[in-house]
Amino acid sequence: MIRTFRKAFMLSTFLVAAIAAPVLAGGPDPNGVATAEANPSAPLNFAWTLIAGFLVFFMQAGFAMVEVGFSRKKNAVAVLTKNYMDALIGGLAFWAFGFAFMFGGSALASGLEQGNSLIGFSGFLLAGNAYDVTTMELWFFQMVFAATAATIVSGAVAERTKVTAYLAYSFLISAIVYPIYGHWVWGGGWLATLPFGAGARDFAGSGVVHAVGGFVALAGAAMVGPRLGKFKPDGTPNAIPGHNLTFAALGTFILFFGWFGFNPGSTLAATDLRISVIAVNTFLAGAAASVAGVYYSLLKNGLIDLPLTLNAGLAGLVGITAGCAYVPSWAAVIIGIVAALVMIWALGFVERTLKVDDVVGAVSVHGFGGLWGLLAVGIFADGTYGGVSGLIVGETGQIIAQLIDIVTVVAWSLGMGFLVFWVLKKTMGIRASRTEEIKGLDITEHGIEAYPSAEQAEVA
Amino acid sequence: MIRTFRKAFMLSTFLVAAIAAPVLAGGPDPNGVATAEANPSAPLNFAWTLIAGFLVFFMQAGFAMVEVGFSRKKNAVAVLTKNYMDALIGGLAFWAFGFAFMFGGSALASGLEQGNSLIGFSGFLLAGNAYDVTTMELWFFQMVFAATAATIVSGAVAERTKVTAYLAYSFLISAIVYPIYGHWVWGGGWLATLPFGAGARDFAGSGVVHAVGGFVALAGAAMVGPRLGKFKPDGTPNAIPGHNLTFAALGTFILFFGWFGFNPGSTLAATDLRISVIAVNTFLAGAAASVAGVYYSLLKNGLIDLPLTLNAGLAGLVGITAGCAYVPSWAAVIIGIVAALVMIWALGFVERTLKVDDVVGAVSVHGFGGLWGLLAVGIFADGTYGGVSGLIVGETGQIIAQLIDIVTVVAWSLGMGFLVFWVLKKTMGIRASRTEEIKGLDITEHGIEAYPSAEQAEVA
Amino acid sequence: MIRTFRKAFMLSTFLVAAIAAPVLAGGPDPNGVATAEANPSAPLNFAWTLIAGFLVFFMQAGFAMVEVGFSRKKNAVAVLTKNYMDALIGGLAFWAFGFAFMFGGSALASGLEQGNSLIGFSGFLLAGNAYDVTTMELWFFQMVFAATAATIVSGAVAERTKVTAYLAYSFLISAIVYPIYGHWVWGGGWLATLPFGAGARDFAGSGVVHAVGGFVALAGAAMVGPRLGKFKPDGTPNAIPGHNLTFAALGTFILFFGWFGFNPGSTLAATDLRISVIAVNTFLAGAAASVAGVYYSLLKNGLIDLPLTLNAGLAGLVGITAGCAYVPSWAAVIIGIVAALVMIWALGFVERTLKVDDVVGAVSVHGFGGLWGLLAVGIFADGTYGGVSGLIVGETGQIIAQLIDIVTVVAWSLGMGFLVFWVLKKTMGIRASRTEEIKGLDITEHGIEAYPSAEQAEVA
Repeated sequence: MIRTFRKAFMLSTFLVAAIAAPVLAGGPDPNGVATAEANPSAPLNFAWTLIAGFLVFFMQAGFAMVEVGFSRKKNAVAVLTKNYMDALIGGLAFWAFGFAFMFGGSALASGLEQGNSLIGFSGFLLAGNAYDVTTMELWFFQMVFAATAATIVSGAVAERTKVTAYLAYSFLISAIVYPIYGHWVWGGGWLATLPFGAGARDFAGSGVVHAVGGFVALAGAAMVGPRLGKFKPDGTPNAIPGHNLTFAALGTFILFFGWFGFNPGSTLAATDLRISVIAVNTFLAGAAASVAGVYYSLLKNGLIDLPLTLNAGLAGLVGITAGCAYVPSWAAVIIGIVAALVMIWALGFVERTLKVDDVVGAVSVHGFGGLWGLLAVGIFADGTYGGVSGLIVGETGQIIAQLIDIVTVVAWSLGMGFLVFWVLKKTMGIRASRTEEIKGLDITEHGIEAYPSAEQAEVA
Repeated sequence: MIRTFRKAFMLSTFLVAAIAAPVLAGGPDPNGVATAEANPSAPLNFAWTLIAGFLVFFMQAGFAMVEVGFSRKKNAVAVLTKNYMDALIGGLAFWAFGFAFMFGGSALASGLEQGNSLIGFSGFLLAGNAYDVTTMELWFFQMVFAATAATIVSGAVAERTKVTAYLAYSFLISAIVYPIYGHWVWGGGWLATLPFGAGARDFAGSGVVHAVGGFVALAGAAMVGPRLGKFKPDGTPNAIPGHNLTFAALGTFILFFGWFGFNPGSTLAATDLRISVIAVNTFLAGAAASVAGVYYSLLKNGLIDLPLTLNAGLAGLVGITAGCAYVPSWAAVIIGIVAALVMIWALGFVERTLKVDDVVGAVSVHGFGGLWGLLAVGIFADGTYGGVSGLIVGETGQIIAQLIDIVTVVAWSLGMGFLVFWVLKKTMGIRASRTEEIKGLDITEHGIEAYPSAEQAEVA
Repeated sequence: MIRTFRKAFMLSTFLVAAIAAPVLAGGPDPNGVATAEANPSAPLNFAWTLIAGFLVFFMQAGFAMVEVGFSRKKNAVAVLTKNYMDALIGGLAFWAFGFAFMFGGSALASGLEQGNSLIGFSGFLLAGNAYDVTTMELWFFQMVFAATAATIVSGAVAERTKVTAYLAYSFLISAIVYPIYGHWVWGGGWLATLPFGAGARDFAGSGVVHAVGGFVALAGAAMVGPRLGKFKPDGTPNAIPGHNLTFAALGTFILFFGWFGFNPGSTLAATDLRISVIAVNTFLAGAAASVAGVYYSLLKNGLIDLPLTLNAGLAGLVGITAGCAYVPSWAAVIIGIVAALVMIWALGFVERTLKVDDVVGAVSVHGFGGLWGLLAVGIFADGTYGGVSGLIVGETGQIIAQLIDIVTVVAWSLGMGFLVFWVLKKTMGIRASRTEEIKGLDITEHGIEAYPSAEQAEVA
């Protein structure tokens, strides 16, 4: 019955699009001639924002490779399917609903007139006045960010979550959970307008994207429960190695590459030359965090732990995401190093204290790394950009706004995360059966192996 | 003797280049100073077009990964070699001949003055007046498109085609087959100037690139015959699984990413702000098609079929390629869904009705997906861009032009495809021997395995 | 003790950054408002240069995939770790020291005032006057080049080099070896101002990046010695196949893609429309070289050697890197073909004559390919750009400058390479033990396998 309901729901969404939208068609500038005339900088800024958005889209390949590499061979198809589909379902959900909830009322472009400080409500389906080149440009860039938040969760809940439940989750996070909090920070909502410092500031989304993804992931991984065999009877964890570190390393390179769209692209304008500083800070934080990971593992047990080093690098990138535009380069190095250490601490906290099984470390990298990123703005912003000044230049207001943001993002993401996964658990069920999990989800949910043996593949 | 002839032919091409070109050297603006002065938008549009072209070039990696993943391990080196070389040989062929046949007479840039509505004949070797920055920019972008058409075929004929024949095919499609049809649509030829609607319109090449590649692939796969064991004695097909779905998924991500160069880049100008609409439509079609693939397989047998889902996504991208600039976003969703269904239908049609063995589904994805894309322009173009209006706004002329284009591209591509592969069959031979096919082409044609075992690799 | 010294050194670097930099903070334009006003072309050129830099960064993934694919499975984690870390440590070293040594005195941007024709000495840590958007832009693009030079070495010394020694090497090449020679060519040093032709010219770094990397790699591979079993008792080499040609091919595609950032991006300006010619030449050289590789192997033994073909393509790209902006397209084809042949000759020279074990052929591809690239400028520059004219237009001065550059880069890179690896050998040791090498570095230096078997991964 639930399945029927879900299908009816999906179907009705598309029917609404097909029938209502043409009636509403016709934004102010669907082909861009007027916009280009009115604003000679528009072409360059469109090109910059779209290309950056393409790079962010490509991060989906990075997430897929990292997550498949850190998972076992018997669940590779399941991981790939979830990673491929969450971005696409998330994007469609963001088209139908999420974008309107997030940017309605922001007045950032045509068709986004209606909303309040809690939620927006115009721009659905990019129809009507939203059929405009500027609105489309904004949508594209924001959509790839929504899709990034969605995909963070898949790694945490990998290897034991039902694929149908995961697809439903993808729709809900991108339609509701991500956009509403996003509205508060980027859509002109209450966090952006806090009366401390410059209001909560999160330049490219340490909080909006990464902490939301990371704490929804924590809720999801807790609700779905640990993999069979992850914890010993006495509660101590077993390490369950993945199956292919080359894929994991490739994925990390792709993510690092895509981050250069994520952070510098978030100016939405190449006429804002701060893009060079942002690119430099992004690199330095990721690099310094990776070095911290290398030397941490080398000091601890004399070996360099590659998975930890890759995750350290990603944590550094998450950590600099909020502050990339606001801090000087030496601070980026420190932010990266601290992000690595925070992530390493969080790995133990999640696994040993909370007893939550997070297959790839997504909660630690994106969740806790994201919180550190928000905090770092309040410390290291040097006042040279965007009117954001932190402790290092003697301002104390900004860090208050950042702390409020931190509490909010944790509460919202955990709360909504538990709610979403609870609803899914009660309706569709979220956990694969014991038999399915032991056999692997590839055979049981997809009817195929990722790497068929030569024997299977021989027919002649 | 044929081999000698072929070598002599290749050699003479390069000699012509080396000797004749310097004599002819000196286009109107080889360093771009005059062009930049005359047109202040040129620098941005060059940057946009070149970067988009780089992304399209990267699609070659996507094709290689999809095709190697969907093939058996014993033919992996053969697949990789063909994918790597077809783009490069195709590019050289397009440099020597194809570009001149396709854009001669278009007057789109310096050195392209001569041609008629059937074929062009100036711009060979980018020599003489074609040594100009604008001509070079156009060549680069068009070359990566030609290379894409060329590479589509490799997947269909994989696992049993002689590599030398395939390299000769790569030269011929890029030198002759692709450019002549391309001239009719993009070079100012007769299809572009049909007296129906705005003439046949194919914005980024559902027909020019994908249908040409797909139907040449159909001819090639038919001529080379099915793999040993593909069809049972009663004619029903066996499934022959590939060896690595992670590579196939990675390849699909790369292709999706590259498509954002393919479609939005086809404006050749960032000053045309419709690029944002194109990017949005491209994403939505690919996403909706993937969702259609997921739910189709889920409804059919309760499992999510990842290979089918990946191919569905690609079909959606192929389907939106012709209309990406002309349709509203709700139509992109519909085009994507229909493209997925057309592709799924075609898979059965090709394999069960035509009894053709297409290893990766290239004919269904690119061939039939491409035809649907051409047709969709005639249905969904909303008149907001380029003066192209379809049935949804009450215009019936456009769909006539599109239908003529559809018939033409099928006839030309199948006809020339059969001719090319027939000539190759009669001269060089196109089919690996039974023994080679059973052992795998990697050992027999390349003398190496893709994944040498640890034992082989140990020498000490 | 050495280890303690090294740690103290790293620590002190970061302390200097953290303490000194804020004091010095405040370049002339840290947010770019003044720069954008003063130069309306700056936004486009920043976007172009940064995006090109992102592509060059992504080449790190390409190097990692090529090198891991060409290495044995038991050393895959070691190869990945070295490839991931060398770019990042190299980038940090370039931030702290290298950039100042290379561009100090060039006056190319704010904060780079001090230096002479041998070495620069301002711009350390991007602090003080270097905290400026233009300096940051220049740094980012130059940093990814430095990181490329650093990573070339890892492939040559793979499978038997201690990871800690390799990390120390990464620091030293990027802090000292690369920047000082780079200063001579790109920082306004003595090679750039030679009184022959236009001075030594190396547009995108056949010498600065590739030959430096390649000849340091030769020194490193010679110092660390061949892998166990590489040479028979009579001195003839054994072939030691890698473990995954799909990764190697993917890496080559990624490198080829990234090269379109490397070469065209080196204008640092999209307002320089020669970028289209550069992109065309880059493609043609890589393509022609690959075809040369194919036909060489086909003629030699009737089989197409994929590893050789991939390396031939890379050699063609290396070969065109110095001259990409200066030569006509027919010359790019010739440069590519010759580069492939030079590389093939060098493979035998290095392995059979010098008896050096270069796992991936880095010395031949980057070292000798790079020298040919420098020489080719003196032959094929046609005078249409940058005032650089070679033999084909009757000028003999340029080739003299290029020959001086060739001698210099070989002497400097080999000399410094031997010095660096000798110091590391005498202090930390550079060679893994015999036992470690036989077991594989993954287990012994990283405590993990790249591809844990299903059995290991099963806990339940």
